[in-house]
Amino acid sequence: MSIRIFVTGGTFDKEYNEITGELYFQDSHLPEMLKLGRNLVPVDIRTLMMIDSLEMTELDRELIADHCMNADEDKIIITHGTDTMAETARVLAKKTLNKTIVLTGAMIPYKFGSSDGLFNLGSAFAFVQTLSPGVYVAMNGRYFDATNVRKNKETGVFEELAD
Amino acid sequence: MSIRIFVTGGTFDKEYNEITGELYFQDSHLPEMLKLGRNLVPVDIRTLMMIDSLEMTELDRELIADHCMNADEDKIIITHGTDTMAETARVLAKKTLNKTIVLTGAMIPYKFGSSDGLFNLGSAFAFVQTLSPGVYVAMNGRYFDATNVRKNKETGVFEELAD
Amino acid sequence: MSIRIFVTGGTFDKEYNEITGELYFQDSHLPEMLKLGRNLVPVDIRTLMMIDSLEMTELDRELIADHCMNADEDKIIITHGTDTMAETARVLAKKTLNKTIVLTGAMIPYKFGSSDGLFNLGSAFAFVQTLSPGVYVAMNGRYFDATNVRKNKETGVFEELAD
Amino acid sequence: MSIRIFVTGGTFDKEYNEITGELYFQDSHLPEMLKLGRNLVPVDIRTLMMIDSLEMTELDRELIADHCMNADEDKIIITHGTDTMAETARVLAKKTLNKTIVLTGAMIPYKFGSSDGLFNLGSAFAFVQTLSPGVYVAMNGRYFDATNVRKNKETGVFEELAD
Repeated sequence: MSIRIFVTGGTFDKEYNEITGELYFQDSHLPEMLKLGRNLVPVDIRTLMMIDSLEMTELDRELIADHCMNADEDKIIITHGTDTMAETARVLAKKTLNKTIVLTGAMIPYKFGSSDGLFNLGSAFAFVQTLSPGVYVAMNGRYFDATNVRKNKETGVFEELAD
Repeated sequence: MSIRIFVTGGTFDKEYNEITGELYFQDSHLPEMLKLGRNLVPVDIRTLMMIDSLEMTELDRELIADHCMNADEDKIIITHGTDTMAETARVLAKKTLNKTIVLTGAMIPYKFGSSDGLFNLGSAFAFVQTLSPGVYVAMNGRYFDATNVRKNKETGVFEELAD
Repeated sequence: MSIRIFVTGGTFDKEYNEITGELYFQDSHLPEMLKLGRNLVPVDIRTLMMIDSLEMTELDRELIADHCMNADEDKIIITHGTDTMAETARVLAKKTLNKTIVLTGAMIPYKFGSSDGLFNLGSAFAFVQTLSPGVYVAMNGRYFDATNVRKNKETGVFEELAD
Repeated sequence: MSIRIFVTGGTFDKEYNEITGELYFQDSHLPEMLKLGRNLVPVDIRTLMMIDSLEMTELDRELIADHCMNADEDKIIITHGTDTMAETARVLAKKTLNKTIVLTGAMIPYKFGSSDGLFNLGSAFAFVQTLSPGVYVAMNGRYFDATNVRKNKETGVFEELAD
């Protein structure tokens, strides 16, 4: 069973530019993280974009959906900025692709020693192998159905939609 | 849904003693790791022992089994040295406890910057929430049924039993 | 022999705000860094400001100079953003205080695992104990006289003024 | 001004063998550490041995002394296990080589995230550039003359010889 991973950027992959003193995107840290985690599940990593999810457009989301639809694999992980992760999840859920798709990300860049990224990635790997077809968000050790999740902008925590 | 975590030691929790230059066990790093991973699943952590799994006796395994049986939770994670993780898993499987029990560990101590521990822990959290009752080993992004797993002593990798 | 340390901010102390996704200043990491380095030289740490050195005004520099003049110690380390470190050094040099003053900083925040901060801090501790009275910049394992140093904005490297 | 670095092993360079669960020596981390510290002082690194300093023999110390004597550089850093660092320093001091020789090491392996190695290395770089000819031990932000230093085996701290 092989897993397809689509990289879209997000905090996960932010780096520090030591000349300008600003955060930016360069290459994805996914391969390095999977090596660190000693992952042995076969994966195929594809970078679709490298952006802050606040800058993600509807066109970008359609592009992601197309790639999910056309992928040979029926187990897909998408690394994504947390700010609009729930929006992208909803767009994907409407496509009813009969695949298990798990979106995950991080609150702290991987290159910071104190990132939650490796924990989230480990959970995403397990969720994508065990959950039935559908679209999910995996953060904080939990998973949420795409139709029932939002990011609380004040606490930074993902939660179910209020009744 | 609350998860019970039993700590038994293993590479996960090895520390460097700077006076003697040797590795030893002090406190578990589980709470620190869960904080780093920003875990929000309710957990109850209990340290049962702090040993190298090569030194684990049958009595120790019975103790672990008793704690699994008596726990209120039906989702249990056990952190364990990798050398005899498969043996402990088999002992637990024979008890047919009707709980989901996931054993996990690390090849590199958490206190080393390059540990696989956080990735494994993230996967264990997800597996324990999604797999049906049974006993499993979660390592390298994969999970194995307790009755069909061994550690390859040469490569350090967990694999299914040879046919 | 006690060393006075004045903290002014700079890349050294930048942290990642996980709600806004921006870098910001909170507390100084100096105490944590000195503990990590197992420093045993007596120090007295005082935070004068917590700013990006691009925002440092002439008034700020006069404040720093006043504190250097009034300090009981004649060995002083100043942690400082790299962008205007040379300017502050020159202001201090003009005061001819008959003290050994060493400015240092980092190209990468300490909270990033890959910071040069600890190396620079170690060198600053040694330079301040061994150099004769004067004002110096310590970066990249080297030291420069305050009257003969600039930061190359393109390479991010400190160098002597061109002849 | 170029600095010669002789690597002899010690805690600095200990690694974790994930198959055996033991600490061992492989390659020196000096180049990686100097890159991290963004060191720009020209260096020439030579590995003389890769051993725990408790296993260092008088022959080993003579070998180190020979290399110090024959080196073109008159500024030399030696990375060394802390247990017998003071002994080696005394052997070198007796050779009266008219060079500045600084021995340094670490209490915690560099590959552990929490090592004091980078701080010590930064201080050694500064001390070797500024101290007059002689043999010194640089640890904990301090330096000691080779003829007046010992490691306190109980506290792990270097100190002057008791009067």
